[in-house]
Amino acid sequence: MPSGKICGLTVKDVRFPTSLEQHGSDAMHTDPDYSAAYVIIETDSGMRGFGLTFTVGRGTEIVVCAVEALRPLVLGKSLDEITADFRSFYRLLTSDGQMRWVGPEKGVIHLATAAVLNAVWDLWARAEGKPVWKLLVDMEPEKLVSCIDFRYISDALTEEEALDILHKGQEGKQQREEDMLREGYPAYTTSCAWLGYTDQQLTQLCSKALADGWTAFKVKVGAELDDDIRRCRLIRQMIGPEKFLMIDANQRWDVGEAVAWVTHLSEFQPLWVEEPTSPDDILGHAHISKALAPLGIGVASGEQCHNRVMFKQFLQASALQFVQIDSCRVGSVNENLAILIMASKFNVPVCPHAGGVGLCELVQHLILFDYICVSTSLDKRMCEYVDHLHEHFKNPTLIRNAHYMPPVVPGFSSEMVESSVDKHTYPHGEVWRSMNQL
Amino acid sequence: MPSGKICGLTVKDVRFPTSLEQHGSDAMHTDPDYSAAYVIIETDSGMRGFGLTFTVGRGTEIVVCAVEALRPLVLGKSLDEITADFRSFYRLLTSDGQMRWVGPEKGVIHLATAAVLNAVWDLWARAEGKPVWKLLVDMEPEKLVSCIDFRYISDALTEEEALDILHKGQEGKQQREEDMLREGYPAYTTSCAWLGYTDQQLTQLCSKALADGWTAFKVKVGAELDDDIRRCRLIRQMIGPEKFLMIDANQRWDVGEAVAWVTHLSEFQPLWVEEPTSPDDILGHAHISKALAPLGIGVASGEQCHNRVMFKQFLQASALQFVQIDSCRVGSVNENLAILIMASKFNVPVCPHAGGVGLCELVQHLILFDYICVSTSLDKRMCEYVDHLHEHFKNPTLIRNAHYMPPVVPGFSSEMVESSVDKHTYPHGEVWRSMNQL
Repeated sequence: MPSGKICGLTVKDVRFPTSLEQHGSDAMHTDPDYSAAYVIIETDSGMRGFGLTFTVGRGTEIVVCAVEALRPLVLGKSLDEITADFRSFYRLLTSDGQMRWVGPEKGVIHLATAAVLNAVWDLWARAEGKPVWKLLVDMEPEKLVSCIDFRYISDALTEEEALDILHKGQEGKQQREEDMLREGYPAYTTSCAWLGYTDQQLTQLCSKALADGWTAFKVKVGAELDDDIRRCRLIRQMIGPEKFLMIDANQRWDVGEAVAWVTHLSEFQPLWVEEPTSPDDILGHAHISKALAPLGIGVASGEQCHNRVMFKQFLQASALQFVQIDSCRVGSVNENLAILIMASKFNVPVCPHAGGVGLCELVQHLILFDYICVSTSLDKRMCEYVDHLHEHFKNPTLIRNAHYMPPVVPGFSSEMVESSVDKHTYPHGEVWRSMNQL
Repeated sequence: MPSGKICGLTVKDVRFPTSLEQHGSDAMHTDPDYSAAYVIIETDSGMRGFGLTFTVGRGTEIVVCAVEALRPLVLGKSLDEITADFRSFYRLLTSDGQMRWVGPEKGVIHLATAAVLNAVWDLWARAEGKPVWKLLVDMEPEKLVSCIDFRYISDALTEEEALDILHKGQEGKQQREEDMLREGYPAYTTSCAWLGYTDQQLTQLCSKALADGWTAFKVKVGAELDDDIRRCRLIRQMIGPEKFLMIDANQRWDVGEAVAWVTHLSEFQPLWVEEPTSPDDILGHAHISKALAPLGIGVASGEQCHNRVMFKQFLQASALQFVQIDSCRVGSVNENLAILIMASKFNVPVCPHAGGVGLCELVQHLILFDYICVSTSLDKRMCEYVDHLHEHFKNPTLIRNAHYMPPVVPGFSSEMVESSVDKHTYPHGEVWRSMNQL
């Protein structure tokens, strides 16, 4: 069926009052209200695509404003026209001669770009009658590469090298696809140990997670060293020496401080320390990586790494041992394709960031594609999972035995439940109106 | 006089239709409408402070929205309270537990932070009855350092090192201040060679600039190599072998391409190539610097370098030979203090970015302070100047014999002419209304 021209783009400010119960709290984001700038595009043939970017409360209205600024670049385009030369459409959105000044490809304007492009990918997958991961898996390497803007990364990855990596990934892909459909993609949980949780909550949630089959657990750290030691000890004792424990500082430290603090926590054998310092500090991460390597602790980052140029350098500088892509901070599938292929070239495993609002729903598509067609390996690889807010999505993630089961419904799993959106629209939705009356 | 509490914050979207005549055009910004998000803060004792950030048209409304999001963090604070612990106020604005997600310290939200903090510095200088440069020159090193957030830069510059550099800068400062008041700070011009100008315009403007005493000239390059060769030859022939010529690619190239292209232009002996590639690409700039060093060509960047963490790395990696601070992209005077002191520690000259709307007006204060109290040298140093849009400021820059003459009026020279603001407010000001009627 012809998908028609895009004739409408709506964007909503959707916020969940998660700060009330400290869900999602960490050393730098102490009171997040998990939120999304939620985009709906419509074509004149009646098709719709849904996309979003994740935010944590205040500031979502700025991203909404940025999505509105992008609207004129999207309206009037047909899906066929976009996907025939997706690289050019990507560049149109990211390199507008006036708007690029307020980026370029970073912060608010890039979050907005992510939301819009996620909606376009949802639309494309629906038009093809496939979930996004399957659309990607079935796509010719040449077509995949045509979605990528190689500007500023050609010194690390040329188009030819990318093609070569993707061609190699075709071999055995059917088997890997079957494996995924049967077993799912391995996940780890962050639900047990938010910074604002009490030890009692930790213990309770961790017991339940163990009973549910989880084998890898992330603990938020970085506020008080004594607390971190106590919490890490508690979790390590509960999960035993074999299972994985990761720690996440959410950018709390300076470079020297990070090395010292993590050294204090090394007895608990974390697999990685996540976001030890500023997400912009490539050389800082390289220094920390080098210092922690003898302790067997890797460095992970990426959820706030703002574009492919930054990921390129993190890889060039051996600054990360785990690349954490995010489905909503960089330029959607297009830019994540570049990052996945660069990670493969540099031989660094990708372990996506998820949680938030819809991040699990979207990123599962990317990591399934990564395994089936790019990395072709599960070694040192797992995808974050947080058991939270999934009920607001029409096709929520399905976790079975601590694995993400591949989505089967066409699209990007990004469509929200309409009544949830209405209720949580800020500031006039029912939930926010009633809170303001208290 | 007591300055009182800040009780009002207004922000305006001011745009000049500069794209009509290709003023400001370069390889990546082909049709800029020079603009500003213009902030006015008011105290309950009737004082006002004016600040802005520069933009190039579309997207200004997003920055305006971001300034509005910062408003609640500013209202109710007194100037005394802010300046007694300016570091904490800076951190309050840049590290809000919810809003930092849409940055942190980059893109739209950081441009907005710059505009707001610039207004606070204007207010402070007015309250002290001094221009900002003089306020800084007279300030104790301890007080200066208390304005800086050292988070994420302490591995390159500790508070103690900063203090030490500032203490050394006190020696002989009175003499240097007198020199500046008499001679002014050396400037170079970018007004002659915007990319959209014809050769005839180039020739005409360059002759006039030579007659006016200019000794350093910047040429926009990067669209077509043949054009660049022709234009550089034209300018070099006109200015002779002794005067400085700089080239500016505005991020047009990938790393390898930059080296090749600039090598082709090396016969014209540019002092530097500016923004050869992505402003995020520290390692790329380091590679280009190394490749061009044997040709005697330096690399300059900074106008889109988004915060002190990035500048830190550019310095650590020897990626720049000229640091181009900007008064409106990073966090105002506070963050620029950190950058000036880091540049001094790494022994790299600072040559500010200016032009746009108000950038000359504001940055002159910073570079005067740099000379008088930090670098204490004019070697390889000059400040950009563009002869454009100054008439919209109450206290426009004063250029004498190609030097910036120190401002004498209290404040940051950031107050715009009210009627200019009204006429150019987008989209309802007279200028835009009448254009839309055409």
